[in-house]
Amino acid sequence: MKYSIYLSGEIHSDWRERIVTGLESNGLDVEVYSPITNHEASDEVGVKILGEEENNFWKDHKAAKINALRTMTLIEKSDIVVVRFGEKYKQWNAAFDAGIAIGQGKPIIVMHAPELTHPLKEIDGAAMAVTETPEQVVEILKYINQ
Amino acid sequence: MKYSIYLSGEIHSDWRERIVTGLESNGLDVEVYSPITNHEASDEVGVKILGEEENNFWKDHKAAKINALRTMTLIEKSDIVVVRFGEKYKQWNAAFDAGIAIGQGKPIIVMHAPELTHPLKEIDGAAMAVTETPEQVVEILKYINQ
Amino acid sequence: MKYSIYLSGEIHSDWRERIVTGLESNGLDVEVYSPITNHEASDEVGVKILGEEENNFWKDHKAAKINALRTMTLIEKSDIVVVRFGEKYKQWNAAFDAGIAIGQGKPIIVMHAPELTHPLKEIDGAAMAVTETPEQVVEILKYINQ
Amino acid sequence: MKYSIYLSGEIHSDWRERIVTGLESNGLDVEVYSPITNHEASDEVGVKILGEEENNFWKDHKAAKINALRTMTLIEKSDIVVVRFGEKYKQWNAAFDAGIAIGQGKPIIVMHAPELTHPLKEIDGAAMAVTETPEQVVEILKYINQ
Amino acid sequence: MKYSIYLSGEIHSDWRERIVTGLESNGLDVEVYSPITNHEASDEVGVKILGEEENNFWKDHKAAKINALRTMTLIEKSDIVVVRFGEKYKQWNAAFDAGIAIGQGKPIIVMHAPELTHPLKEIDGAAMAVTETPEQVVEILKYINQ
Amino acid sequence: MKYSIYLSGEIHSDWRERIVTGLESNGLDVEVYSPITNHEASDEVGVKILGEEENNFWKDHKAAKINALRTMTLIEKSDIVVVRFGEKYKQWNAAFDAGIAIGQGKPIIVMHAPELTHPLKEIDGAAMAVTETPEQVVEILKYINQ
Amino acid sequence: MKYSIYLSGEIHSDWRERIVTGLESNGLDVEVYSPITNHEASDEVGVKILGEEENNFWKDHKAAKINALRTMTLIEKSDIVVVRFGEKYKQWNAAFDAGIAIGQGKPIIVMHAPELTHPLKEIDGAAMAVTETPEQVVEILKYINQ
Amino acid sequence: MKYSIYLSGEIHSDWRERIVTGLESNGLDVEVYSPITNHEASDEVGVKILGEEENNFWKDHKAAKINALRTMTLIEKSDIVVVRFGEKYKQWNAAFDAGIAIGQGKPIIVMHAPELTHPLKEIDGAAMAVTETPEQVVEILKYINQ
Repeated sequence: MKYSIYLSGEIHSDWRERIVTGLESNGLDVEVYSPITNHEASDEVGVKILGEEENNFWKDHKAAKINALRTMTLIEKSDIVVVRFGEKYKQWNAAFDAGIAIGQGKPIIVMHAPELTHPLKEIDGAAMAVTETPEQVVEILKYINQ
Repeated sequence: MKYSIYLSGEIHSDWRERIVTGLESNGLDVEVYSPITNHEASDEVGVKILGEEENNFWKDHKAAKINALRTMTLIEKSDIVVVRFGEKYKQWNAAFDAGIAIGQGKPIIVMHAPELTHPLKEIDGAAMAVTETPEQVVEILKYINQ
Repeated sequence: MKYSIYLSGEIHSDWRERIVTGLESNGLDVEVYSPITNHEASDEVGVKILGEEENNFWKDHKAAKINALRTMTLIEKSDIVVVRFGEKYKQWNAAFDAGIAIGQGKPIIVMHAPELTHPLKEIDGAAMAVTETPEQVVEILKYINQ
Repeated sequence: MKYSIYLSGEIHSDWRERIVTGLESNGLDVEVYSPITNHEASDEVGVKILGEEENNFWKDHKAAKINALRTMTLIEKSDIVVVRFGEKYKQWNAAFDAGIAIGQGKPIIVMHAPELTHPLKEIDGAAMAVTETPEQVVEILKYINQ
Repeated sequence: MKYSIYLSGEIHSDWRERIVTGLESNGLDVEVYSPITNHEASDEVGVKILGEEENNFWKDHKAAKINALRTMTLIEKSDIVVVRFGEKYKQWNAAFDAGIAIGQGKPIIVMHAPELTHPLKEIDGAAMAVTETPEQVVEILKYINQ
Repeated sequence: MKYSIYLSGEIHSDWRERIVTGLESNGLDVEVYSPITNHEASDEVGVKILGEEENNFWKDHKAAKINALRTMTLIEKSDIVVVRFGEKYKQWNAAFDAGIAIGQGKPIIVMHAPELTHPLKEIDGAAMAVTETPEQVVEILKYINQ
Repeated sequence: MKYSIYLSGEIHSDWRERIVTGLESNGLDVEVYSPITNHEASDEVGVKILGEEENNFWKDHKAAKINALRTMTLIEKSDIVVVRFGEKYKQWNAAFDAGIAIGQGKPIIVMHAPELTHPLKEIDGAAMAVTETPEQVVEILKYINQ
Repeated sequence: MKYSIYLSGEIHSDWRERIVTGLESNGLDVEVYSPITNHEASDEVGVKILGEEENNFWKDHKAAKINALRTMTLIEKSDIVVVRFGEKYKQWNAAFDAGIAIGQGKPIIVMHAPELTHPLKEIDGAAMAVTETPEQVVEILKYINQ
């Protein structure tokens, strides 16, 4: 038995790397899934593969759906979804992923700075743990993985 | 057969009233569900009923879960979830509700200004319709309700 | 207990009316659901409500999704899905509806001329009854409804 | 984690081979499932194994059900269903497979020439990507598989 | 709240009538569903509505599927499935119905003479109550219906 | 839309009556379900209807299953399960009901004295609200029912 | 991808061995599951492990449930359930297994002599193939396994 | 095929070790899952990883949810849940786990002294076997694992 986790959300800090490094330095055998975190590749994928669009709405639409092929499949295959909210940007896709996990009955761990507690209260309320650092996520995985 | 819709998201404009009025003026018999839209009542409900908390995290936590009793039940009973994003605030709970609906296999209609297209692309990509006004939602309901 | 049926497929003959008339003349209390059968209204609904598109692909896309809001909800609420294939046109949406019903574990009754047996063998093979006329569907409903 | 895909639909061109070749030349480890694409074997399997039938309806019926044992199991085991529509024949079984996937909540990629957009609008509307060539499918799998 | 029960199995004694009479004389408002219990009508329905068959296998096949439209729908709508096994005949359809209910997670009550205990042990083992008379079923419904 | 609640657990105080009275005095239209709370009737029902047992294990077994016909059906039909733990007795059936609700994805509200917090931490942790009095449950229902 | 099949039903002939031999001689890699086919071991297992019973009903009851631990788990893990009915005995457990598979949406293949067609019509009607010999089952598995 | 079992409940005797030893000495390849059985580690995990709490309710709350990440995932991955009740303590979490398994349609084996029969009747009534010793559980696994 090996846990699988999906790391959703913020792509502008190194939190995913810190979780992976932490898991490795603790010798934990956890399957780690992530979305495509290359912002430009992710934005351009729709028109690049399926053809140009004049209207940005459809450009985004095509990209979002190809990314969802990855995202939805990986959330489905995960035991736990970890969702990090950073200080900047709307990050609605992170909240959307959290909802998808909850809608499918899958447990979530949330990570964010304490300042974001109030706007994130609904998501925190549905979470099995509310963390602030990647190291806390590693500690949780270490604990449940003994 | 009577459609049931849940109106999730922004609570600072009159979009819900405009949908209800539009349904009525078109003589459409649609069951309309909403969250508690009184911001203060919603924030205070946890400590008011279940006892004070020193830490705001737990105050929010208690409130979020009581609100979720309503939200989750009503989303479950709806045929379609309409989610509106306004110009202000994080509105992560709106994106979270959209995810819950999609995670349960329930169709969503999204409403937002065109300026929000890029940060909402994942949610728009999963939607059956992306609208800008409450009147468009009424038109859709009128069409499918003939 | 009252059966609910969804009548999917061909829109160029009066088979739906003949089923409804047959149910009425037999005094059968069956809830009958249908898609929007006005071809033009169905094709135009997307751009009419959500705004013009230069590209026909997106025009069709918007229309298809609004129609799916109705179709998917009504299939979900039906006990039995009746799917008729006419002699003309591709009618892929009829075969698609049949698949949706089967994918959800819902029984189907198929209606088509004997000439179409070979290309429809997979759908016929999944059906609880393969009929040729609306009157046969009425007879089946009369029988199971005693 | 390894994606599994099911390649449904047209059996008169080499699109399946081109996908397999494309996956191999890109070094992508994807599990590829297909129906029996030998037309005659597929048509005859019922009477060959289970005994002759005078009536072609029952001959087709027996064959369709044995083929469904394979088809349904493989769709169930796939993460993504790719459905190609060619220029000829009714291909209702392709649309039926697309519906089964959607009815089970499984994502689909559609492949067809632009001329078929209008009759395929409902299936395209439910798809995560609408492609024209096998190479585009390979590109999508390459992208989500990084 | 009103319980719905489906009465499956033996059609050669008056056990269904005795349950209905018992419910009425106790003033119990229970929705009671049954299969078509007219043996001949049930056997002939396939060929009568859908056309003659030379081979009895297909005659039975057509009839069985039309009857299943009723049976499956009513089992689905029931809270409890009551299955009676008589002394005569194979009654495999009764055991089949019991399995369908269990496979769907629906509770069953079994009714049979003590002599049949050994061959029915698997079904009895899955049942919430093993009764011998219709009056015992009425007593159970009276008890849970207070 | 009308909420349905199931009141599980302790049968030695008047907490159910206080919830019902509170709902009535607030004019709240909530469907309230309960198990059979007559201890003796509940213990004796198996042997009374289905015949005597020498071994108490089987006496309890028969009774437990008939009671489960009621309990399981009513939990299934409820939107929210309220579970109260009193000061005395093992009350394992209350914890069992809480687990059944959670296993089915149904929200629970727990009620117990603060002294029981530690042994009930797993159940409290899965609850949407942890209350001490019936009046708090009424307040929650009043709030979500506006 | 490797198919898993469960072989339910008759235990008095060598049909299971003939399927296993046929699979091997055709070089087919199929996972084959079976119930405990040692009649006496199966009947005695309950009292042997869990303690004697005076009443045969409870002896059978204990045995049936332990056997169900195996049966239910293996049916759950199978892609296809093969059910054989022999000429003798009631074999209600075979029909019960067929129902469990159908209730769970799992395909079945039935095997029986033509004389049993009429009493087995409901089960045959739900099957993907009705065979008479183990060799036909092997042929089907060979065909779908290419 | 390899069975997976989850051993829930009492942590003050060596019953888990005796099951593991028994499986090994019988050469049985069964995957065995357990909760964290170090009482103190389990109680402290929440505040240790996620930060101190003044209120014991929240200390327990945080711990319970992290433990649930393990418990819920392992129950989900198990074929059978074994639940042992000891003579001491409330052990509501054991009854809660039993309920979760039943709510998810997963079979349970219960283990307890005969004195606990009456308060455990609901859980025993839902179980596939009621045992008194770890050796009986091993015998059952040996039997179903042949």
